[in-house]
Amino acid sequence: MAHENFESVNKTPMKAKSAGASTKQDFLAHGQVKHIDVTKNPGIVAVVDGMRSMAFTARDLARAADITDKMLADTECGVILTLAGSLISAGLKKVFVDMVRNNMVDAIVSTGANIVDQDFFESLGFKHWVAEDKLKSGLFDGELREHALDRIYDTLIDEEELRICDDTTQQVFDAMEPGAHSSREFTRALGEHLDKSGGPKCADSLIYECYKRDVPIFCPAFSDCSAGFGLVAHAVARGDSPKVTWDGGKDFYELTQLKIKNPSTGLFMIGGGVPKNFTQDIVVCAEVLGHDAPMHKYAVQVTVADVRDGALSSSTLKEASSWGKVDTVYEQMVFSEATLAVPLIVGYAYHKGSWKQREAKRWATLLEPAMAGA
Amino acid sequence: MAHENFESVNKTPMKAKSAGASTKQDFLAHGQVKHIDVTKNPGIVAVVDGMRSMAFTARDLARAADITDKMLADTECGVILTLAGSLISAGLKKVFVDMVRNNMVDAIVSTGANIVDQDFFESLGFKHWVAEDKLKSGLFDGELREHALDRIYDTLIDEEELRICDDTTQQVFDAMEPGAHSSREFTRALGEHLDKSGGPKCADSLIYECYKRDVPIFCPAFSDCSAGFGLVAHAVARGDSPKVTWDGGKDFYELTQLKIKNPSTGLFMIGGGVPKNFTQDIVVCAEVLGHDAPMHKYAVQVTVADVRDGALSSSTLKEASSWGKVDTVYEQMVFSEATLAVPLIVGYAYHKGSWKQREAKRWATLLEPAMAGA
Amino acid sequence: MAHENFESVNKTPMKAKSAGASTKQDFLAHGQVKHIDVTKNPGIVAVVDGMRSMAFTARDLARAADITDKMLADTECGVILTLAGSLISAGLKKVFVDMVRNNMVDAIVSTGANIVDQDFFESLGFKHWVAEDKLKSGLFDGELREHALDRIYDTLIDEEELRICDDTTQQVFDAMEPGAHSSREFTRALGEHLDKSGGPKCADSLIYECYKRDVPIFCPAFSDCSAGFGLVAHAVARGDSPKVTWDGGKDFYELTQLKIKNPSTGLFMIGGGVPKNFTQDIVVCAEVLGHDAPMHKYAVQVTVADVRDGALSSSTLKEASSWGKVDTVYEQMVFSEATLAVPLIVGYAYHKGSWKQREAKRWATLLEPAMAGA
Amino acid sequence: MAHENFESVNKTPMKAKSAGASTKQDFLAHGQVKHIDVTKNPGIVAVVDGMRSMAFTARDLARAADITDKMLADTECGVILTLAGSLISAGLKKVFVDMVRNNMVDAIVSTGANIVDQDFFESLGFKHWVAEDKLKSGLFDGELREHALDRIYDTLIDEEELRICDDTTQQVFDAMEPGAHSSREFTRALGEHLDKSGGPKCADSLIYECYKRDVPIFCPAFSDCSAGFGLVAHAVARGDSPKVTWDGGKDFYELTQLKIKNPSTGLFMIGGGVPKNFTQDIVVCAEVLGHDAPMHKYAVQVTVADVRDGALSSSTLKEASSWGKVDTVYEQMVFSEATLAVPLIVGYAYHKGSWKQREAKRWATLLEPAMAGA
Repeated sequence: MAHENFESVNKTPMKAKSAGASTKQDFLAHGQVKHIDVTKNPGIVAVVDGMRSMAFTARDLARAADITDKMLADTECGVILTLAGSLISAGLKKVFVDMVRNNMVDAIVSTGANIVDQDFFESLGFKHWVAEDKLKSGLFDGELREHALDRIYDTLIDEEELRICDDTTQQVFDAMEPGAHSSREFTRALGEHLDKSGGPKCADSLIYECYKRDVPIFCPAFSDCSAGFGLVAHAVARGDSPKVTWDGGKDFYELTQLKIKNPSTGLFMIGGGVPKNFTQDIVVCAEVLGHDAPMHKYAVQVTVADVRDGALSSSTLKEASSWGKVDTVYEQMVFSEATLAVPLIVGYAYHKGSWKQREAKRWATLLEPAMAGA
Repeated sequence: MAHENFESVNKTPMKAKSAGASTKQDFLAHGQVKHIDVTKNPGIVAVVDGMRSMAFTARDLARAADITDKMLADTECGVILTLAGSLISAGLKKVFVDMVRNNMVDAIVSTGANIVDQDFFESLGFKHWVAEDKLKSGLFDGELREHALDRIYDTLIDEEELRICDDTTQQVFDAMEPGAHSSREFTRALGEHLDKSGGPKCADSLIYECYKRDVPIFCPAFSDCSAGFGLVAHAVARGDSPKVTWDGGKDFYELTQLKIKNPSTGLFMIGGGVPKNFTQDIVVCAEVLGHDAPMHKYAVQVTVADVRDGALSSSTLKEASSWGKVDTVYEQMVFSEATLAVPLIVGYAYHKGSWKQREAKRWATLLEPAMAGA
Repeated sequence: MAHENFESVNKTPMKAKSAGASTKQDFLAHGQVKHIDVTKNPGIVAVVDGMRSMAFTARDLARAADITDKMLADTECGVILTLAGSLISAGLKKVFVDMVRNNMVDAIVSTGANIVDQDFFESLGFKHWVAEDKLKSGLFDGELREHALDRIYDTLIDEEELRICDDTTQQVFDAMEPGAHSSREFTRALGEHLDKSGGPKCADSLIYECYKRDVPIFCPAFSDCSAGFGLVAHAVARGDSPKVTWDGGKDFYELTQLKIKNPSTGLFMIGGGVPKNFTQDIVVCAEVLGHDAPMHKYAVQVTVADVRDGALSSSTLKEASSWGKVDTVYEQMVFSEATLAVPLIVGYAYHKGSWKQREAKRWATLLEPAMAGA
Repeated sequence: MAHENFESVNKTPMKAKSAGASTKQDFLAHGQVKHIDVTKNPGIVAVVDGMRSMAFTARDLARAADITDKMLADTECGVILTLAGSLISAGLKKVFVDMVRNNMVDAIVSTGANIVDQDFFESLGFKHWVAEDKLKSGLFDGELREHALDRIYDTLIDEEELRICDDTTQQVFDAMEPGAHSSREFTRALGEHLDKSGGPKCADSLIYECYKRDVPIFCPAFSDCSAGFGLVAHAVARGDSPKVTWDGGKDFYELTQLKIKNPSTGLFMIGGGVPKNFTQDIVVCAEVLGHDAPMHKYAVQVTVADVRDGALSSSTLKEASSWGKVDTVYEQMVFSEATLAVPLIVGYAYHKGSWKQREAKRWATLLEPAMAGA
């Protein structure tokens, strides 16, 4: 990308025009989003057990919890967590961090927003804020904009802090070796940045924890997030000099390599979108590359997407089996908004403890030699 | 990406194991998906007019149609069409092709599946098939897999044909100049391939029509589709030799350049997902690059996604205004599955004819010089 | 019901406390709800024809239209229309009136609100009003209450007019022969009242049209609407004197009698709820009464209800077949909000014209003798 | 209703034609639905506490739990539980029974199916059965019908047992004093029948528990359930002799009387439908009867219904405030399927224990004198 006809990247926040700090504080007076800690809730096991012989979503959820536990007991199986939707900002961060800490997940495939705009953002010391109920109506969005506050349904973000997050990604990219990188390499670089900067400025950081434990994080639409601004700003600043670029094909290649090297895999999917599709597709990609990879053996998905529009987010796991992607023996969809179902399923699996037999697979280390030769 | 420890890319279809041709034909006996032609339905105008003073979705749809017409009458405004969900395979291809043919759209941002797996696939002469109703249950997916038939809810695809589509993308990529390219460049190369091969082998091809008319197509998650297989296969085949790579950051840069060069923009969004978010974000990206870009002036979205999970697909257009992305004067969400609402809205706008004052903006030509210097 | 400890029924509207007429007019300045007239839209046929070989909802809708047409061509078949949700206030009144006028429907089973609060209400000369978009947020509901305006999502009703509607039902009930009546008898009395008062004060009245054409209307939760207030007020005013009462069991008996006397039946269902369940149940009730009644032969339902909560509104028509209620050969659910799908389906059936071979079944006359002996 | 031209009510089950007992048992081999017991799950409190500062549904659910607890701490407030959807068959029976046992609810307004077809059915010793997952597809419904098995999404019912339930309601009605009765009187008679027959034949019976504790149960669409068959069969068997009839207007009168006698009220609503609307309407009915009744002070609703179709089930509690029905200070909707959210909310309120200060209001006793004079 050429520099073209502008002098420099704009660093000043553009939105905050009329906001006085006190009024902004009014909007932020309802407290911070706090992340649920399922490790402290052993009572979840009995609740889920009580749901197993009910009907509808309760029964589905209990079955999903059973499958998750079984997947973790299958120590050969590599577990891939896929994230779509605003999950970190919604208070699920510690759930995912605890999965990583306890070897319950071997790779993460996510929207960029969860990883960069939300987790890395909090790792820099910034917070998500509880929005007053009336803000959900959308009628105050013009006013929020005056105060440079961004809204995600019932949650607020300080746009100035988000711009700092954007800028920090650029700084990290500026410091990287020029060349084409996968999103996994970029997210690892962000984790390394936190490590070298004295660790994350919050209690739990997914990007940092994954860095420390060699759990790779892929963002197959990596430019569609805060990091996208960093990529563009980096490219513009570099002009015709060597620069880092995001090689999205490499993402697909690398994730497929993990499938090839650890053929037995299971999926824990929250929401659908690109992360779901991308991760399911590695079975076919392994096949294209000449490997007789088995379908994903376990698959759980929590979603509110409706099946009737034929979109991928809502497509059943059975449908995926027609494509040769997901086996149908241990699969379960749970129709629920994630903040409700995920703590119950993961909390159940955590307290059942089958993960205790698992060792860290440190999948990132499987990719490093290949990368060296790339 | 290194070649590693396998000899060559597997070209044989892997799935078809037991299928006899006759039985496969049984599954395909319910006919082909046919694309609706709204240009032949002037009666749509009266229908939509009759909905304007009703309530609920009918009123919303009529308002969306009015905004679409107004957006097209505003000849300064560049119109960006975003596509998520299986829309081409669902019979909406000709609607989009007619929008391109009649200067009703200046750029497209889409999931890769719509553009490559579905439109390019049909351009190669392949078809989508109507699935029998009972297949929706998912209980026949194992059998479909035996016949190498892939299912999208109520639609079938021949996996062997899809593998040919994958392979063709690789051939196109093999013939491209090595280096980092945006998805726009890749989709243009696919259109050029069709042109050089004697044109598309179907009546209407979106990728070809956009190529001929310089309408750029972006796929911000380009490796998450048939082209992803092509990218990986290309990279593996090239080994350490120079190769083409997809530079996802360049996508973001290029689309932002269009916003900078044609500041007045409007969005016609079908589904949400990465295309919606990515396109909304260019307002902020232009700002980051030092340009005082106005918010998208018009925005229509057709979706079944529910607002209550806070996910981006369902986030209201008002919410986007808190982020400084979408203006709130001319915005309308229509809660409907796309196959029902889109023909009515586009058909209305087509027969109202405000687009007749528009000239082709040929936005692809705005990017070529920049690319030359890239 | 005894009169107890109060003197008389309160006739004064209770809500309007602070409202000045001018401000109330501001809320009502966005015009009246207007009812779509599908008889003037022959273009609908081509639109629906164009959807038949698409996918998802478009294909389902075309199939539903085909089944509806086929049901009307089957002149033996009695057609029952069930209505749940705010449909009349939403602008679908003329669609239903035209169905009655053209012998496309032989009985109606509805929520009370559609028939009394909305259709009878409009028949008295009152109107439904278009609410400004921002009112959907709910943030102005307190203010609306100050002005005695009731809101149905995006539609407004003048509470004082609704109280007049309540009172009118009481006056009609006061004039009826004391005794236990089915809701069908009550709705007929309302139609007769309109007839004797010089006809409805609006262009199209469902309750009046049904009265004139002997199409019975059942409201199986009849006290759950404006008429409920009339029933209670009537009962209280009468004290220990003879009075009219609503005998809900008689509703079930009468509707079952129609099934027994005209065994071939088909359902056109909009929304679910009590009307759907109640109407499906008459097959079983006929069986209980010793008649070997066939299942409903045709069934179309338009709904946005989700199947995954197991509720009746969303239960599939296939599920109903396990109960012996609905045959599965000619059944189709259409996942759409009614204002969008119903004009297309009914408009298609209207212009296809199979109903022209049908004669009015005048089912109300089948029930009159039984009633005499009741 | 006259007897007409048939000899007697058909008592033989009509559906079971080809079923051998062994094959029927195959369908029933997946166990019985078991009811969750939240009283044994004190861990729910910590889970809900952990959700309070999250986002989306988790936060909404925690707020709903807080409001429920607050409503129970307000000892003046009468609590009305409304039930729509298949809740008892889904395993929520014990949740409601425990609410009744612990004075957490003062009246119930429900669809007839929950009370008669499901709770009374289980009280007679019958069971609901877990359906195998594949049955959800609907493709086995013909086969189920052959075995006289009825399906509710993922749950099975033995139709022969349901016919016995129908017949038992008739026997109870046969034994009642002829005349017009409210559904409350009918449900009380069903409870009395259980009491006189040696108590319910299952561990927990809602209808029995309410009978013993004078908690009135209203079914405002009472003929739309198993009891409807009993009503019709009773009427037919009685012919011209005096008989019992269901007076639906009396339901409305009685429930309004409770509002008048205990003006402070709160609602705990599961699903929407007639129970929701009917219960909200008593505020207006009290007003119509000359009483200045306050709006419902607390309101919680758990539903998956979508707001965008304007139907009552999904209408927001704010919207109800425009009608003067529900106050907006303590109201919360929770977007979740009931089996997931209800155990958490009620479990939270149970273990917080604010209900311990409440005394049984025994509202049924308030209605008995009025009834005597009716």
